[in-house]
Amino acid sequence: MKLFRYIFALILLSFIYGCDKNLKTKNSEKVEFELSLIELDSNRIKNDILKLASFGNTELDGNERIAYSDYNVEALAWLQAELEALNLKVSIDFAGNLIAVRDGINNNLKPIGFGSHIDCVPSGGHYDGQIGVLAGLEIFRALNENNIKTNHPLELIVFSNEEGGVFGSRALAGVITDETMDVMTASGLTNFQGVNKLGGNSDRIFEVAREYPAFHSFIELHIEQGAVLEEANLDIGVVQGIVGLRWWDVEITGFTNHAGTTPMDRRNDAMLAASEFTLAVNEIVNSIEGTHVGTVGRIQAYPGVPNVIAGKVILSLELRDLSNEKLDILFNEINKRSSQISKKYGTPFEFRRLSATGEPALTSIAVQDIIEKVSDKLNLTSVRMPSGAGHDAQEMALIAPTGMIFIPSKNGISHSAAEYSTISQVQNGYLTLLHSILAIDKLDSLD
Amino acid sequence: MKLFRYIFALILLSFIYGCDKNLKTKNSEKVEFELSLIELDSNRIKNDILKLASFGNTELDGNERIAYSDYNVEALAWLQAELEALNLKVSIDFAGNLIAVRDGINNNLKPIGFGSHIDCVPSGGHYDGQIGVLAGLEIFRALNENNIKTNHPLELIVFSNEEGGVFGSRALAGVITDETMDVMTASGLTNFQGVNKLGGNSDRIFEVAREYPAFHSFIELHIEQGAVLEEANLDIGVVQGIVGLRWWDVEITGFTNHAGTTPMDRRNDAMLAASEFTLAVNEIVNSIEGTHVGTVGRIQAYPGVPNVIAGKVILSLELRDLSNEKLDILFNEINKRSSQISKKYGTPFEFRRLSATGEPALTSIAVQDIIEKVSDKLNLTSVRMPSGAGHDAQEMALIAPTGMIFIPSKNGISHSAAEYSTISQVQNGYLTLLHSILAIDKLDSLD
Repeated sequence: MKLFRYIFALILLSFIYGCDKNLKTKNSEKVEFELSLIELDSNRIKNDILKLASFGNTELDGNERIAYSDYNVEALAWLQAELEALNLKVSIDFAGNLIAVRDGINNNLKPIGFGSHIDCVPSGGHYDGQIGVLAGLEIFRALNENNIKTNHPLELIVFSNEEGGVFGSRALAGVITDETMDVMTASGLTNFQGVNKLGGNSDRIFEVAREYPAFHSFIELHIEQGAVLEEANLDIGVVQGIVGLRWWDVEITGFTNHAGTTPMDRRNDAMLAASEFTLAVNEIVNSIEGTHVGTVGRIQAYPGVPNVIAGKVILSLELRDLSNEKLDILFNEINKRSSQISKKYGTPFEFRRLSATGEPALTSIAVQDIIEKVSDKLNLTSVRMPSGAGHDAQEMALIAPTGMIFIPSKNGISHSAAEYSTISQVQNGYLTLLHSILAIDKLDSLD
Repeated sequence: MKLFRYIFALILLSFIYGCDKNLKTKNSEKVEFELSLIELDSNRIKNDILKLASFGNTELDGNERIAYSDYNVEALAWLQAELEALNLKVSIDFAGNLIAVRDGINNNLKPIGFGSHIDCVPSGGHYDGQIGVLAGLEIFRALNENNIKTNHPLELIVFSNEEGGVFGSRALAGVITDETMDVMTASGLTNFQGVNKLGGNSDRIFEVAREYPAFHSFIELHIEQGAVLEEANLDIGVVQGIVGLRWWDVEITGFTNHAGTTPMDRRNDAMLAASEFTLAVNEIVNSIEGTHVGTVGRIQAYPGVPNVIAGKVILSLELRDLSNEKLDILFNEINKRSSQISKKYGTPFEFRRLSATGEPALTSIAVQDIIEKVSDKLNLTSVRMPSGAGHDAQEMALIAPTGMIFIPSKNGISHSAAEYSTISQVQNGYLTLLHSILAIDKLDSLD
């Protein structure tokens, strides 16, 4: 394999700054550090992606490496061998997480953690969390090749069963229960069975839970899964947090009647109320500044035939934002508006909050500052943004100052064979992660 | 059975008008005639309804006398016996229609037809078309009792399988096909099989077709199936026609995307377009004066889950009116508006016209005039109105100057155990039908 070395020296030499090891960062203005001269190998990056993709690759170029599948086991075995070849301490914990530790100068210091997951949704793609794991592999190689010793130990974590409910990271954060273990997953195995298949130990799984601060900091690299970066032609997303998510079933009660014999002014048409509600949700969400989103994605009319006025409509309401307060404001506005719509059409509304909701998980401002500064120094453009999707980082935020780095997704597509980022974009992510780790390593604390 | 004679003499004596047998009517001002002194028996009316209801009556007081069921056969047998006892010529034609003919003074004249159907939808009620049939029975009795001979022969028709597609009346109008015969009905029998069960002859069914003008005129009495009469506290609906009905599947194409990671301003949300469209249909229908109606009763979002922006919505559009021109105007407006909505959301619209549509069937103005005048003379309040639902009369309009009389439906409910009209309301309908027949009998022609 021909190794083409991608040279950053000329670019980076112009960014040499003095380093203040004891700096307590609160915003990016205060973050000052130098970037080491480290090369990454774009061919090696590409080949890693191809190799990992080969475990579960389908004819249509998508991936079936769902959690606990044979592909999952085989891919972990390959990764473990690659990591062991780099003289790391590699193990699989009781929760099926693959963990690779590289010694620091002072192993009494909390480790700097990073990683993501390699399991896919059914008919998934080859980038998603995979590049967050392969980044760790490439970073370890680069550090070895450049004989760089960090102060803190480094810990790569390949989380188990992310797609089935951020399982491995929840186990580390101590928030799984016996019920979680009994959940049936896409593989046909429960988490209890699946963890053991990966080399974990279901009976002792609760022992893996760690307490804050389990890490000096933790950073996850992931594809954006949206088109914000691509459309704005930006290289790096500095994730401010994983948005909280609230779901409701909204039931609107009208009066079922004959669509031919009921005059227009004698109707209680639940479809009209549902339509005005759906537009109101969009209007209210857009009327308040911010990156929050609101969606009506499911709708069912009853009886749901062309010649009967709908006597009932049930639709879904989903709201997402980083701030619980904002979510409260949005819902209150929507609820208020629904009362007006209810009166207008004579169609009572009932909101049923669903349990499939998540609290917002904010990342560390200090880690955001570092990621932003690093991308600046790498001459990469960046933007601070929320993550609209869930990630292992949301669980790690419970036990460590956490950051997250996004790279662009082509057309914003993910969880699909069409999921794609260029090698150059992937490499930008790796370098940002690498230099963020090295910058953080120079800090005593991120509080 | 105690017979309570309901006396109209005192009321009617004040309405004696001169009669002009040769009047060519074009509007109600020209219709002049006398009302004969005829009594109807409210107890007998009530008992007929109870007797017919007993064929298929369910525990919840609804009716399962679906077309071609054993109940249907048994009810026809009872009716046939009752009619034969009145010295009528009773037969079942090849289409399974029960027909009872009473001689006129001149049997060479075209008969005056009337009737409706006794079959129900599954879990139907006891009024619907039944009262239009029982009216014929009671009218024959009253004419016999009062020794009244009409100039024209009278012909009561109990149409077969109305609820399954106005089958018997379509056969008479000559618009059924071989495909119609193969249609599977709610009974589990095809029309081909069902007609034979009723005593018809499937092999010769096309012979029953008649040509315009097969009748001097035809009048159907039916419950309104809406709440127009009840809410306006009116006794009689003078039906202007059975509205035409057009159906479309409207497919709106958006872009399926992650509801968490796709910002509000980067969406092509088919649900928003569908909502604006649904409200636009209502607004456009209401913006034009008339009794036309427009309804979106069915909607399906794809993929139809709370956390995915709908990439496709398919909904139904139904428009009904007496005038094809009005239907054209409405659809053109709706189509024009959908173009604007399409541009606004980036969501193309496709309209697919469905074949389940019917042409408007106008009733005869002359017959309307007579029904209106008769109800005036009976001291009954009336209104001219369209029928939003389909009826045998729409088929009969193809082969005769046709009229239709509505009586109020409690709460506008039909096709349900809750279907109800008072005996007084039913009797008003019978009397209006009877005296309309007698008034028409005095006319040479209705052209």
